[in-house]
Amino acid sequence: MFSFKNDYSEGCHPLILEALTRTNLEQTVGYGLDEHCIHASELIRNAFSCPDADIHFLCGGTQTNLTAIAAFLRPHHCVIAASTGHVNVHETGAIEATGHKVITLPAEQGKLTPEHIQQLAADHTDEHMVKPGLVYISQSTELGTVYTLAELEAISHCCRENGLLLYLDGARLGCALSSADCDMRPADLSRLCDAFYIGGTKNGALFGEALVIVNEALKPDFRFFVKQRGGMLAKGRLLGIQFEELFRSDLYFQLGRHANTLAQQLQEDLEDAGIPMLLRSPTNQIFPILTPDLYARFKSLALFEDWSTLPDGRRVIRLVTSWATTQQQVDDFLRALL
Amino acid sequence: MFSFKNDYSEGCHPLILEALTRTNLEQTVGYGLDEHCIHASELIRNAFSCPDADIHFLCGGTQTNLTAIAAFLRPHHCVIAASTGHVNVHETGAIEATGHKVITLPAEQGKLTPEHIQQLAADHTDEHMVKPGLVYISQSTELGTVYTLAELEAISHCCRENGLLLYLDGARLGCALSSADCDMRPADLSRLCDAFYIGGTKNGALFGEALVIVNEALKPDFRFFVKQRGGMLAKGRLLGIQFEELFRSDLYFQLGRHANTLAQQLQEDLEDAGIPMLLRSPTNQIFPILTPDLYARFKSLALFEDWSTLPDGRRVIRLVTSWATTQQQVDDFLRALL
Amino acid sequence: MFSFKNDYSEGCHPLILEALTRTNLEQTVGYGLDEHCIHASELIRNAFSCPDADIHFLCGGTQTNLTAIAAFLRPHHCVIAASTGHVNVHETGAIEATGHKVITLPAEQGKLTPEHIQQLAADHTDEHMVKPGLVYISQSTELGTVYTLAELEAISHCCRENGLLLYLDGARLGCALSSADCDMRPADLSRLCDAFYIGGTKNGALFGEALVIVNEALKPDFRFFVKQRGGMLAKGRLLGIQFEELFRSDLYFQLGRHANTLAQQLQEDLEDAGIPMLLRSPTNQIFPILTPDLYARFKSLALFEDWSTLPDGRRVIRLVTSWATTQQQVDDFLRALL
Amino acid sequence: MFSFKNDYSEGCHPLILEALTRTNLEQTVGYGLDEHCIHASELIRNAFSCPDADIHFLCGGTQTNLTAIAAFLRPHHCVIAASTGHVNVHETGAIEATGHKVITLPAEQGKLTPEHIQQLAADHTDEHMVKPGLVYISQSTELGTVYTLAELEAISHCCRENGLLLYLDGARLGCALSSADCDMRPADLSRLCDAFYIGGTKNGALFGEALVIVNEALKPDFRFFVKQRGGMLAKGRLLGIQFEELFRSDLYFQLGRHANTLAQQLQEDLEDAGIPMLLRSPTNQIFPILTPDLYARFKSLALFEDWSTLPDGRRVIRLVTSWATTQQQVDDFLRALL
Repeated sequence: MFSFKNDYSEGCHPLILEALTRTNLEQTVGYGLDEHCIHASELIRNAFSCPDADIHFLCGGTQTNLTAIAAFLRPHHCVIAASTGHVNVHETGAIEATGHKVITLPAEQGKLTPEHIQQLAADHTDEHMVKPGLVYISQSTELGTVYTLAELEAISHCCRENGLLLYLDGARLGCALSSADCDMRPADLSRLCDAFYIGGTKNGALFGEALVIVNEALKPDFRFFVKQRGGMLAKGRLLGIQFEELFRSDLYFQLGRHANTLAQQLQEDLEDAGIPMLLRSPTNQIFPILTPDLYARFKSLALFEDWSTLPDGRRVIRLVTSWATTQQQVDDFLRALL
Repeated sequence: MFSFKNDYSEGCHPLILEALTRTNLEQTVGYGLDEHCIHASELIRNAFSCPDADIHFLCGGTQTNLTAIAAFLRPHHCVIAASTGHVNVHETGAIEATGHKVITLPAEQGKLTPEHIQQLAADHTDEHMVKPGLVYISQSTELGTVYTLAELEAISHCCRENGLLLYLDGARLGCALSSADCDMRPADLSRLCDAFYIGGTKNGALFGEALVIVNEALKPDFRFFVKQRGGMLAKGRLLGIQFEELFRSDLYFQLGRHANTLAQQLQEDLEDAGIPMLLRSPTNQIFPILTPDLYARFKSLALFEDWSTLPDGRRVIRLVTSWATTQQQVDDFLRALL
Repeated sequence: MFSFKNDYSEGCHPLILEALTRTNLEQTVGYGLDEHCIHASELIRNAFSCPDADIHFLCGGTQTNLTAIAAFLRPHHCVIAASTGHVNVHETGAIEATGHKVITLPAEQGKLTPEHIQQLAADHTDEHMVKPGLVYISQSTELGTVYTLAELEAISHCCRENGLLLYLDGARLGCALSSADCDMRPADLSRLCDAFYIGGTKNGALFGEALVIVNEALKPDFRFFVKQRGGMLAKGRLLGIQFEELFRSDLYFQLGRHANTLAQQLQEDLEDAGIPMLLRSPTNQIFPILTPDLYARFKSLALFEDWSTLPDGRRVIRLVTSWATTQQQVDDFLRALL
Repeated sequence: MFSFKNDYSEGCHPLILEALTRTNLEQTVGYGLDEHCIHASELIRNAFSCPDADIHFLCGGTQTNLTAIAAFLRPHHCVIAASTGHVNVHETGAIEATGHKVITLPAEQGKLTPEHIQQLAADHTDEHMVKPGLVYISQSTELGTVYTLAELEAISHCCRENGLLLYLDGARLGCALSSADCDMRPADLSRLCDAFYIGGTKNGALFGEALVIVNEALKPDFRFFVKQRGGMLAKGRLLGIQFEELFRSDLYFQLGRHANTLAQQLQEDLEDAGIPMLLRSPTNQIFPILTPDLYARFKSLALFEDWSTLPDGRRVIRLVTSWATTQQQVDDFLRALL
C-alpha cells in the first residue's frame, strides 16, 4: 500500500534525528532560551533577511496560529480568511476560542484578493460589527496553490492601507517557496508580512514551527502569550536543534523541492493518462478528479484523503508527497495504476 | 559546573531515543490515532488499573492542565488550588485565559487539606460568587512533598461530597509514586481522581504528558478540546512511542527512583553537614537554607534555582535531580562542597 | 421630520411608565428575586403555555444572546445562524468573544432551512472541525419575515435529529406572533424551541428581554451566567414591572399588531404607488427599493436606515414602525410623499 | 420592618422619574449617541474637571468593570485587587471570564497599599507568571472606608512607576466624595486615575454607571467593547437622562451626603449604646458587631446583610442607608431598638 495521505506520516529527516541524538545529553537552559534556539533564530534571520525579527519556536500549526493571532489582536478585532483557510475550517474554532471572529471571503483556488479584502473593510464601519484586524493567508494554500510576488504585494499594500495586519501561515512554506510557480524570495515575506511562520512539521521535522515576527509593535511580551497558551516547551532546545539542521544548509528548501518534484510527476502523468485535476497545483498537494471506477482503483493501491464530491458524482481526492516520499514509490504507484 | 537546576535540562532516556530512531520511517496515521499511541494507552491502563480510562497524549504540562480543566468545567466554575500550585503561580494565567477563576487556599508544604476545601465550598453559596468546580492538586507537590494515601482519600471523599472534580497534576508523578514516603499505588489514583496526568517531560521523555480520564462524564468529545487548544500533535505517534518505552517495563518508576535516591543523598549529606532544609522532601526536589557564605559557595559550583529569601536574609534554593543525574555528579558535587 | 428609523426611538408605553411610577418607592430584594419578577414570570409561563420553564430577565438582546448561548454550549460547539442573523452581523462578535464560532448558512429572506442545517451537520464529523451545537433563528427575522409553524416544526425536528439545540431570538417576537402570516401560537415556541427570548426593548418597554428556558438540561445555575456576564440588574424589579404590564393583559401582542398594521399600510401604499419592495414583509420592517430621485425625496421627509445598494444603483432602505408610531404620522408621511 | 439591606431597594429619585416621564415620547437616536447622553457627558466632564475625558454609560457595576478591564488589558495582564474587592469576590468570576487573572493583596479595612502593590510588581518578573497590568480599587471600599487624597496619590504614583493602570470602581462614589473623611475633590480622580466609574445605581438612579476614561491610550474603539460585551443599551438615552438629573445640580453629592448622615447617626447611636463596630466607616455602610441576643433583636426589627461571624461567635452585620432612607426611619428604628 502506497501512502499519499499527508506530509506528516513519518518521523523526521535523518540529519535531524542525528542532531537530536548527538545533542541528547547536553545540558541546556529550558523554554527556548538555549544556544540551539539562539543559533537557529540567527540562521532563520539570515535566510529570510530579517535581521531584527523576533523568532519563537512552537510545537504545531494550530498552536502557532492561535497564539500569534490572539496576541496580535484586541478583543473587537476579527480575522479575515479565505473560506478554505485552515484557521477557518480545520482548527476546531481555535481562533474563536480566543475570542475573535473569523470572517471568510470567497477564495478562488484558496487565495484571497485585495478587492475582497478592501470591500470587507469598507463594509465594517461601526461598533455594531467587529473591526477587521488581521488578514490570514496560507502559502502554499490549502489547495496547493501559491501566491505570486505581485499578488502578495497587492495584498500587503491593501492591508497597510486599511490598517490590517498581514499574517502568513507557512505550514507548507518550504514547498511554496521552492515551487516553480513561486517568484518570491524568502526576504519578500519579511518585507510584506507583519508575521509569518515557517512550517517544520510538514517539511522534515519531528514537529515544530518557527514564528517570525517582523512588525516591531507585535514583539513585546510575546513569550508570555506562548506560555499562557501552553506552547512553551520545557526542552525548547528540541525545536532549536531541528531548525538548526533545516537552515544550517539549504535543507529546508531542498526538502520542499523534492516533494514538489514528485507531486508534479504524479500530476503530469495522471493528466497525461486523462485524469483531470481540480486545479493545477505547483506544490506537493494535487487534486485528481476520479470517476467511481478510478476511485476504486486508487483506493486499492494507496492511502489518500477524500476532498469533495462533485455534483456529477465524481470524487476529488488529495495526493500529498513529502520529503520522505521516494522516487521509487511514485514510479511504482504510477506503474501499478496506469 | 554541576547542574541541579531542573529535571528537563537534557534530552531523553537512551531507550526512548532508540525507539524514536527505530520507528522513524514507519508510516502512521496522524493525530494520535496510530498503533503506538494505542499500545501506549493500553500499557498505561494496565499500569494504573483503569481498564476503561481514556488516555490522551499532550506535549506539556501547562497545555495539559489548561486543556483538561477548560474541558471539564462550565463557565461559572472555579478551580481550587494551593497557593503554591503550578496552575496558580507558574502558568501565566493559562487557566484564567480559558475563563475560569483559580481560588487559592493556604497550603502547608504545598498540600491542600479537606478542611480548607470544605470551608471554601461552604462559603460559595450563591450566584454572586463563582461555583467551586474542580480541585487541583500536584503529586509530588511544587515543594517536593507527597500526599499520602490517607490524605488523597480524604480529599477525594471531600470532593465527592461537595460535587467537585478532583484533578491531579502528575508532572513529577514518577518521583512521587516511587518515593519512600508514598504509600499509594498507581491504581489508587485511578480510583480516587476524576482525571490525572502522568508526566513524561520531567521523567525521561523528550516531551509529553499522558492525560488519564477516569470519570465517564468527562470523556466525550475530548479530542475536540485537544485540537482546539493547539495540543494535537500531527505526528502524535512521537508521544505514543515515548510512553511505550516508559511503560513497556518498569522504566517510568525506575527513573523516578533513581532521581529520588540521588536527591535524598544530597538532602541527607547536606543536613549532616549542618545545612537545614525548608522542609523534608522525599522526592527529587530539595530546598536547602543557605547563609550568604554558603550561598556563594553553592553558586560557584552549581546551577540551581533561587526559591525565596527568609526574613533573616538566608536564601532558600532548590536542587533538583533527574533520570539524567549521575551518582558521580552527586558524589563529586558533595565532595567539592563539603 | 418623520422617523421610521427603528422601534426603539422613544421611551416606553404609558402603562409601563405608570407602573414604574406607582412602584417607585416600594422596597424589594434585588437581582430579580422580587415579587414583580416572580409575577411577570408567571404571566409569561401562562401566555406561552410553559408551566415549568425558567424565566430570566435581561437588559438587552446582545446580552441575552451571548449569555444564553455561552451558557448552553461546551467550548467546542459552534452556533449555526443565517448569514443575516443578528448574532452574526450586528453584535460585534459577542458570541465569538465567549469562545464560540458562528457558522453561517445561506438564508433566503432571512430564514434558515432544515436542509442546510442537515448538510452542515453532516459535514462536521471530526475533531478538526467545530461541533455543531445550537441553531440560532430570529422570529421575526432581520428582514421582517416570519417562520411559519410548519417551517419551525421542520427546523425543530432537524435539530432534535442532529442533537442540536434550537434557540430563537425574539427581539421582535411581538410583531412576529401578531402578524398576518404567522400561523403559530406562543405555545408552539415552548414546544419547539429549547430556549427563546421575548423582546421588550423593541415592543414598548424601556428596555428588557425575557429569556424562556424550556429544556430542563439548560436550567441549572443559569443565574450564575447572568451575573458573570454583567447582565444581573441590581434593581431587577424594573424588568419584572415592565413585563408585568406587557403580559398582564394582551398588551404585548396589541403593540405588535399596531406596529404591523402601520407598516403594512406603508408597504401597500408604496407598492400601489409603484415602489417595489425587496421582499414582502408581514411585520413592522419593510424594505422599499428606491431610485435616486425617490431616495432623495424620502431622505427629505423622514429618518430611516440604508439597507443596501443594488447593482443597478437603486437603494434599498428600511422603514420601521413601532408601538409609538401613530396613524397620523403614517398618513401624513404618505400624503407628503405620494 | 425597616430595611437597611442595601442602597438599591427602591426605584429612583423623584427628579429622575420626572425627567424620564417628561422625555418619554421624544424621538432620539439609539445606543447612547443622543443629546441627553451628550449633555450628561458634558456635565460630568465639568463636575470632574476632565474636559477631554471620554464618557460611556453602562447599565451596572459588574458590566462596567468587566467591559473596561477587558478592554484596557492585553491577554497576559492580571488585575491587582484587594482580597475584599468586588471584582474578586462578588462578580462570579466576571473578570476571569474575559481571560484575566485577579491577584489579591491583603487589604486593611478594604484598602490597598502602595507597598503591597510594589512588592507584587517586583515578584512578577518573567513570562511564567502573569504580568501586572491594572490596579483595581473601590471608593468607597466594600467596607465603607475611603481612601484619603494622600493614599490615592501614593497608589497612583506607584502605578505610574510600575507601568500599571489605575482603575477606580465608584459604585458608591457619591457617598465617598461627600463623606467627612474624604479630603479629595472630583478633579483629583481625573488627575490620578486612568479610568473610573461614577455609580448611579446605588445613588439615586434606576440603574446606570458612567465610565470616565481619562487616559488617552484607553479611549480608541471603546464603543466596540461596550457592544461586544452586551452593555450597549438600545435606548441609551435612559442613562443620559438619569445622569443629566444627577449632575445638572449638586444632586449626586447631596444624595451621598444624605445617606452618609443617616448612617453616621446609626453608627454613633449604636456605639453610644455600647455596640462595637468592625471598623469606623465614614460612609453609608456600617458594620456593627452583635451578640446573639442583640442579633435576634436586630433581626426582629430590620432587614440587613450578614457579613461574617467572629471566632467568639458574635455576628458582624452590615447596615446600609441610601438616598431613599428617611430621617424618620432611622429615628424610629433606633427608638425601637435601644
